[in-house]
Amino acid sequence: MRQERRWTAALVVIGDEILSGRTQDRNVAQLATWLNEQGIRLAEVRIVPDDSDRIGEAVNALRGTHDYLFTTGGIGPTHDDITVDAIAAALGVPVVVHPQARAILEDYYRGRDGGLTEARLRMARTPQGAELIENPYSGAPGIRVGNVFILAGVPAIAASMLEGLTGKLEGGKRVVSVTIGARAAESDVANLLRETETANPGVAIGSYPFFRDGRHGANFVVRSEDGELARATGAELAERLRTAGYEPVEGGI
Amino acid sequence: MRQERRWTAALVVIGDEILSGRTQDRNVAQLATWLNEQGIRLAEVRIVPDDSDRIGEAVNALRGTHDYLFTTGGIGPTHDDITVDAIAAALGVPVVVHPQARAILEDYYRGRDGGLTEARLRMARTPQGAELIENPYSGAPGIRVGNVFILAGVPAIAASMLEGLTGKLEGGKRVVSVTIGARAAESDVANLLRETETANPGVAIGSYPFFRDGRHGANFVVRSEDGELARATGAELAERLRTAGYEPVEGGI
Repeated sequence: MRQERRWTAALVVIGDEILSGRTQDRNVAQLATWLNEQGIRLAEVRIVPDDSDRIGEAVNALRGTHDYLFTTGGIGPTHDDITVDAIAAALGVPVVVHPQARAILEDYYRGRDGGLTEARLRMARTPQGAELIENPYSGAPGIRVGNVFILAGVPAIAASMLEGLTGKLEGGKRVVSVTIGARAAESDVANLLRETETANPGVAIGSYPFFRDGRHGANFVVRSEDGELARATGAELAERLRTAGYEPVEGGI
Repeated sequence: MRQERRWTAALVVIGDEILSGRTQDRNVAQLATWLNEQGIRLAEVRIVPDDSDRIGEAVNALRGTHDYLFTTGGIGPTHDDITVDAIAAALGVPVVVHPQARAILEDYYRGRDGGLTEARLRMARTPQGAELIENPYSGAPGIRVGNVFILAGVPAIAASMLEGLTGKLEGGKRVVSVTIGARAAESDVANLLRETETANPGVAIGSYPFFRDGRHGANFVVRSEDGELARATGAELAERLRTAGYEPVEGGI
């Protein structure tokens, strides 16, 4: 079987507010889902504080080992927004005011109180050599520099930037996943799961237990880049569960 | 000012289901909040797939640079639960059946269908030299080996294990945070924020914008290990906001 080229991405989530527990991150799941639609796998995430050295270390560790590196957070107008400076330093390039970003912000703030103030102009700063990622939501654009994509931390704004990137990144096959649920204790079907996975090279089966309404249960997720294989293995797993006395639920419980 | 010893922890979240976007992680925020109550700061998180080498790399990269390393995920009875084996390999020790864990599971499964099956006995395996972390919720214990703490991925079970650890880890001062909200665009108060932070060494002020009910706003979080200083700086910030024409909201919006 020919090994297909697999495209991977990493994400660096930047923010003291995530590491303090104050804010529940939403960007990991959002980016993961979007990447899969582009045929790219999210392969690693690091969450680092608002600290220039730590941001730079993570960016440099991951941008060389993945096709794409995304960051979220720290690109607003306030003093704690240090992502652009940290990434420029990590890449060894200066920070410049991007003329197109400046023009976008001038437009956006025209007629608003204060106009394009110094604080707002901070959002036009990019590492040298960057392109912009459109952001219809709030004016201030995202930034692409090489294979590094710098997105906002607010999930709705990050989503808007991802929309601007949809279909523009090279990727491979999507991973297709088929979920089968059953009111089974994981430990009772462990052998059955392992056998099904072993019998179907090219699929991975994950088992995700829960305890609800006073009963144990689990969802089994069959994943493969080969959609037909994923579906066939899902059907096989459902049949094996039925034979073992469970009632398989397609799509999960 | 004497620099106090600062205790830090890192977290490795293990799970294809988080990286695929299927499951929204809850353990980062949960552990961060719990750690702060113990006087320990969550300083870095890595999310890695169900891959032994990648788990081992992350564990070895972080256990030496932090006082404590936590992992979540991959300790159940199924074939995709490889955390114990991966960490034992990373530490260079064999996997053993822990006698006390075996006894706990024998008790838990006594009289249940099948008793302590081979799959269930998997949950009694630990790296050699480990201690157990009690888990009243579902029997199967967490594992401590050196400064590495291996917790379940299901958030309610991880919470139960953390409860068993409460008060048992050495830590320093908690970080106290004071939140002030205002219906201000971040960019309009950027200077005021920076000035307040600069005037109060020992505090960090984070700015977290939102857009709600058609209006811009932001919450400003003043953080310090010195509770008095955090509260005084919060009051100062509220006063500065009032002077600038905003209505500060204690506790945030």
